[in-house]
Order: sequence, then C-alpha cells, then structure tokens
Amino acid sequence: MRRKKTQNLSGGRRVYLDHAATTYLDTRVRRAMDEFWSDNFGNPSALYYEGRRAREAVENARRQVAEVLNAAPQEIIFTNGGTESDNLAIFGVVRKLRRQSSQKKVHIITSKFEHHAVLHPCQELEREGVDITYLDVGREGIVNPLEVRKALRPETALVSIMYANNEIGTIQPIEKIGKTVETFRRAKKSKLGPQYPVFHSDACQTPEYLDLDTRKLKVDLMTLNGSKIYGPKGIGMLFIKQGVPLEPILYGGSQERKFRPGTENVPAIVGFAEALKIAQQGRQKESQRLKKLRDYFIGRLLKEIPKTVLNGHPSERLPNNVNVSILDVEGEAVILYLDEYGISCSTGSACTSESFEPSHVILALGRPHAYAHGSVRFTMGRKTTKKDIDYTVERLKEVVEKLRSISAVNIKL
Amino acid sequence: MRRKKTQNLSGGRRVYLDHAATTYLDTRVRRAMDEFWSDNFGNPSALYYEGRRAREAVENARRQVAEVLNAAPQEIIFTNGGTESDNLAIFGVVRKLRRQSSQKKVHIITSKFEHHAVLHPCQELEREGVDITYLDVGREGIVNPLEVRKALRPETALVSIMYANNEIGTIQPIEKIGKTVETFRRAKKSKLGPQYPVFHSDACQTPEYLDLDTRKLKVDLMTLNGSKIYGPKGIGMLFIKQGVPLEPILYGGSQERKFRPGTENVPAIVGFAEALKIAQQGRQKESQRLKKLRDYFIGRLLKEIPKTVLNGHPSERLPNNVNVSILDVEGEAVILYLDEYGISCSTGSACTSESFEPSHVILALGRPHAYAHGSVRFTMGRKTTKKDIDYTVERLKEVVEKLRSISAVNIKL
Repeated sequence: MRRKKTQNLSGGRRVYLDHAATTYLDTRVRRAMDEFWSDNFGNPSALYYEGRRAREAVENARRQVAEVLNAAPQEIIFTNGGTESDNLAIFGVVRKLRRQSSQKKVHIITSKFEHHAVLHPCQELEREGVDITYLDVGREGIVNPLEVRKALRPETALVSIMYANNEIGTIQPIEKIGKTVETFRRAKKSKLGPQYPVFHSDACQTPEYLDLDTRKLKVDLMTLNGSKIYGPKGIGMLFIKQGVPLEPILYGGSQERKFRPGTENVPAIVGFAEALKIAQQGRQKESQRLKKLRDYFIGRLLKEIPKTVLNGHPSERLPNNVNVSILDVEGEAVILYLDEYGISCSTGSACTSESFEPSHVILALGRPHAYAHGSVRFTMGRKTTKKDIDYTVERLKEVVEKLRSISAVNIKL
Repeated sequence: MRRKKTQNLSGGRRVYLDHAATTYLDTRVRRAMDEFWSDNFGNPSALYYEGRRAREAVENARRQVAEVLNAAPQEIIFTNGGTESDNLAIFGVVRKLRRQSSQKKVHIITSKFEHHAVLHPCQELEREGVDITYLDVGREGIVNPLEVRKALRPETALVSIMYANNEIGTIQPIEKIGKTVETFRRAKKSKLGPQYPVFHSDACQTPEYLDLDTRKLKVDLMTLNGSKIYGPKGIGMLFIKQGVPLEPILYGGSQERKFRPGTENVPAIVGFAEALKIAQQGRQKESQRLKKLRDYFIGRLLKEIPKTVLNGHPSERLPNNVNVSILDVEGEAVILYLDEYGISCSTGSACTSESFEPSHVILALGRPHAYAHGSVRFTMGRKTTKKDIDYTVERLKEVVEKLRSISAVNIKL
C-alpha cells in the first residue's frame, strides 16, 4: 500500500510545502466558527432571534473584512470561493454591459498566466464574440503596466490582472496598473461609459504577505478566498467598489445585495473574516521570516542541483514561493518520489495537476516545454522551518540524481 | 435591548419552528467533518499523500450519496448549495442547447410556486427570449401531471418542478411527472434531440421525509443541499443523470468532471453525505412522529383560532409543515410577537422575508392578497415536541387576539 510505504520512508514525518494549493484551518479560526454550527445556527434572512443573531455575525464579519481592505462594508460580497468570485467579476462586468448598452464590441485585457478561474471565463466570452488581449508577462513573470496602457481601447470593459501568480509567486505592479486604468477612465476615453474600464485583481495568494488596501491598489474588483489563508474552504469574497456596474451570475434570493443569492454560509463567513484578520496582522513579520528562508532555499537548489533554473523574478515574488525547473526530469516524478519521503509539493497548480498538461504559467515565461515539464513548486507556510528546507533539499538531490540516472533526456541549458 | 426582552418573556426558552429555513448541525455530522479542518486538510487535486487522502474522502462521500439516490457516483456533482444547483440545472440545460444547436425556439415548463432559485433563473432566460410556462398549482398547491403533459412542446428543453414546496410543504407527484416527461421523450416528440425534455426537481426540503430514489422518481436532474437536513451550510449537490446535456455555469479548474470548478470543500462534502445518510435512515420513523404532531397542531389552530385557514393540501404535505393564513392580522407582526415569546417561525420563505412582498406561493394558490399577508409557516424538526406545539398554540392565540383587537381590518371568510 502506498500510504504505508510513504510513512516508512519518511518515518511518518510530513513536510507540507504546498500552501498555495490549500492550507490547514487555523485553530483560532476554527474556534471563531465554533458557535455557528449548532448553537447560533439561524438563517440570517429570518426576522426572529436566531436569524438576527446570525445576521449580526455576518455583518460583523463584513465590517471586519472591510476594515482590512480599507473599504465600505457594503463593498464586500461573500461568495463560495475564488473561482466563483473571479467568474462573477468577469462575466458580471460583460453581462451588465450587454444588458445596458447596445455596444457590440467589447474588449478585455488579461495576462497569459492568470489562474484558470480567470482564463477560462475569458475564453468562454471569446466564444461569445468578446475580444480578449492576453498580455505577455516577460521572462520574469511580471506584467508591464505600459503594456496594459498600450492594450487599452475605447471598448475595453475590463482589465483583470492577478496580484501575485499562484505558481511562480511573482508580484504584479497592481497599484501602477490601477493608476493606468484610472487615468484612462478619467480621461473619458471609454466608449462604454464613465465607469469603464473596470479593474479586477485576483488576490487569493496574497493576504499572508501583501498590503490589501483597495484604495491604494486602485482596484475596482478584488477576489479573495478562505482556503489559502488558513481559513475554511468553500468561502470567498469579491470586493465590488461602490458604483462598479456588475450583473450577478446566480439568481434566487436577495442576499448579498442581490449580487449573490443563497443562504449565507455563516460559520464560513465568520471564519474567513477571522483568517483574513490574522493573516494581515502577521504579514510583515511572516514575510520577513519566509523571505530569508525562501532565498536560502533557492540558493541551495541552484547551487547544489545542476541544471536547475528559478522560474519567476528572484525578489519580486511571494515570500513563501520557490518554483524551479529541474531539467532532464519530469515534475510529476519528482512530486511522487518526494511524497515517498513525506514531502508534499506540486508541479503547476493543484487545479491542473490532474490534467498533466504543461503549466501555462511556465510556458508564458517563454520557456520551452521541457522547462514546464520539469517545474516543481514549493510553497512554504507558517510552520515551515529551516530544518524542513534542509530535509527537502537533501531528499530532492537524491531524487533528481536517481531520476536523471534513468532519464534518456539531456537538455542543454 | 431586544435580545434581553426576548429572553424575559419566554424565560429564555426557545421553540425553533423554522426548520425549512435552516437547521442546526447534527452532532454526528459535525464529528464526521472534524478531521478535515486541520488534519486531513489537503487539496483533493494534489498528487501527494494529503491530496490523495482528501480525494478519498470526497469520493467516499460521493459513493455514499449515490447509494442513497440509487445513482452512479459520477452522477453526483457537489456544488455550493441549493441555489447554485438550481441555477446550474436551468441555465446549464439551455446554454448547452444553444451551444449545440441552431434551434432558436426554446421552451421551459415550471410552476408558479417554485423557489426563487428556480423562478429567477427562468425569468432571466425569459429576458433572453426563452418561452416559459408557469403552471398553476390549484387551490391545494399540487401540480397536475396532466397539465405538464398539455404544456409539453417539441421545443420544450426542460421541466422543473419541485419535489415539495418550501412554504406550504405540499408534495408534488414527481414520479408521475417524471413518467410524463419520459413518455414524451421516448415518443421522440422533441425537436431538440433524443435527450429532451430534461426533467429537473428541487428536492431540498425532502430528505428528512421522502424517498429519494432517482430511478423511481424518473428525474434527470435533482437538487439537494446541506443546510436543510442538519448538515453544513454552503454545500449542495446536483444529481446529473448519465447523458443529460449540461453546460457548466462556472469556469476554472477541472474539478467535479468540469461541471463545477473550484477547490472541493472537503469537510462540507463529507458532512453533507453524512447528513443525507442520517436523514434517509430515520425518515420513516420521523415522518410518522411528525405527521401526528402536524395534524394535532393544524387541528388545534383551525379549531381554536377563528378565521384561520390551512394553506396547501391537508395530507399531501411534508410531515413537518404547518402553514396557515390568519385573517385580519399581518404575518410579520405575528412572527415578531411570537419571537418575544421565544418562538421562531416565518412568513413565506426566509429568502424573501426581508423584502416584505406577499408570498408568491400563497398567491399561486389563488388566494387573495390578504391571505398571503396573514400567512405564517411553522416547520417542525427532530427536537420538536408536543409540549412545544401546545406552548406555541397558546401563545399564538394570545398574539392573534391582541393584534385583532387593534386591527382595522375585518375580512369576511
């Protein structure tokens, strides 16, 4: 049995290095959610005591989140997760436009290495006749605000650029892109109306490390979720700046200001707010700690494993992200061998790891397919120690050596 | 303070009679979810140990649900809740059709008293040019299968009729409607293709009491959710019979056979499966117990409170549902006064109670507005006792007397 074998080789030890895929639930978050399962379980839409208490909890959570984002509480809409929030942002802007205007030509700007929850809705809209610009991200995986400026057109409805990439961790110049979009909008260069173009950013990977001030970032829409920040799964939110034109994607009850129907998931909403607060409170200290560990980790990998290259910018990246291409080996094989040693990491994002397609993110960097096939992502978390990293580097060296000894491939750098 | 007052009048006692709005989490369900928060927290799409364990849990849950529904595991798709499942069923069928065929005329049959999660998507499609037949439900709130037969057309893509109404609890002849649709389909009377019309049923209110055998019911799509069956909130599912043509409504990762992207909410999925199993195991015994209590409750109300009429069929209704119109009083006033006595009940569904619109369900029965305004719904649950009902009837008598003494209205029956 695989499971037994796993535990044997690692002596039962697990080194979890896939925090970008999902995180465990923080004990404090779990405690905050506790009373909302069986005691304070009411439907927030109900008029009576249990309903009012649940409503109170939801609105407190909303205020708490709004404070973190420097937003008004009514600008926070709770959803089921990052995927739903991204879909709501993208489809929502286009559908609202279609409903309100006869303008046939609609244009969206995004980047080649967005999460599939952004790219796939864009591809759907493309089928419906929307024109999409997929911006290049350069060799280091950073979108150039000047490229955004060049791509903007009078019929651009939406610009969607992620805050930090989920595979290579590169941090995008959101503030500059936000300013670029705002300048275009203020110059009344849009044919669509004074609220266009709308600027959306998927920020799911960032709350542990980056500033989420929506006014500073100049975002109109911003996606966050719970499962990447030691919060519950199945909960997310979309920041919708006052006045941004958006049509819902689900219809039913009038919850969440009609942007999102369905009985509110009270425990998850409370848990998300708590997780976000904790993440943001600790972000500076945790960033400092992990940056050191990240650079130590990268340094050892590049030095001690031949033919290894770093994917993404060396410093403009999330403090917890290490993504390398190890030539002449298959990423999947590395993952499975490391798993035997109790180490959990991934190739590409979890959402696509089942499809075994080469990572669209690594390809977007202009790297050849062989680099994408050999890419391995390590994402550290709150409990990751130097000892974990040392253990990982040692095991990885063994694994790569073993795989290369049986590999027929020998790529020249 | 309202809260203090509430506790004073009732001596801290709460009689919760709004189980159709939402239920508390069953202790056994909570226990089943326990390990998936912080220990077994992996992303089911990941290849390593934690991921495989999470995948195993999700697939076990899927098999467990499939067994209850007499379905194949791959026919079970987990979503975020009843609203999402209903939206997926309705938009999914129409969008798939639009993508695959040039047929411009599309028709849907539903009833006037469906949940808003069905009605509002239908209204959206109406704006897009889809023709919708909203069937009458008669004075007793039951859809006539013959009316369904009469409404079926060669261009009918979908029939969506709920299994039991959420406000008045009337049980619909789903099996007969299923047969009607199947007969039409088998006779190849559809212009749209051999899989049409598709039959969907929202069964959210039923797992505690009714048979969910999808083959017997002859449903092609069926909606269930967790928050009405002592399971977690924020989880639902759509049964999608093998071969039913459906387009997703969200795009992103390839989870749930591409019908529903986004990281799986593992604890909620496990909890939902457990809650469904428990509900179905106990359904016959619990139905018997509550039917007696329901009929006792109804009997006392009609006898002891003048000018009170029962909404919906007297026996073809869920064992836990009591819905009456009390003339010359406002339903909302009754709710708020009863709340002071520690009794939680509702007027209309929770989803619309905020809007203060008269219930579309009571209006669908052909009752005048005054009946809708005076409608009060009591939905009992696992812990409801005869003592609770006696207490409720006594307090309700007082409240109605009080309200009528200050009411200017005096409607003739």
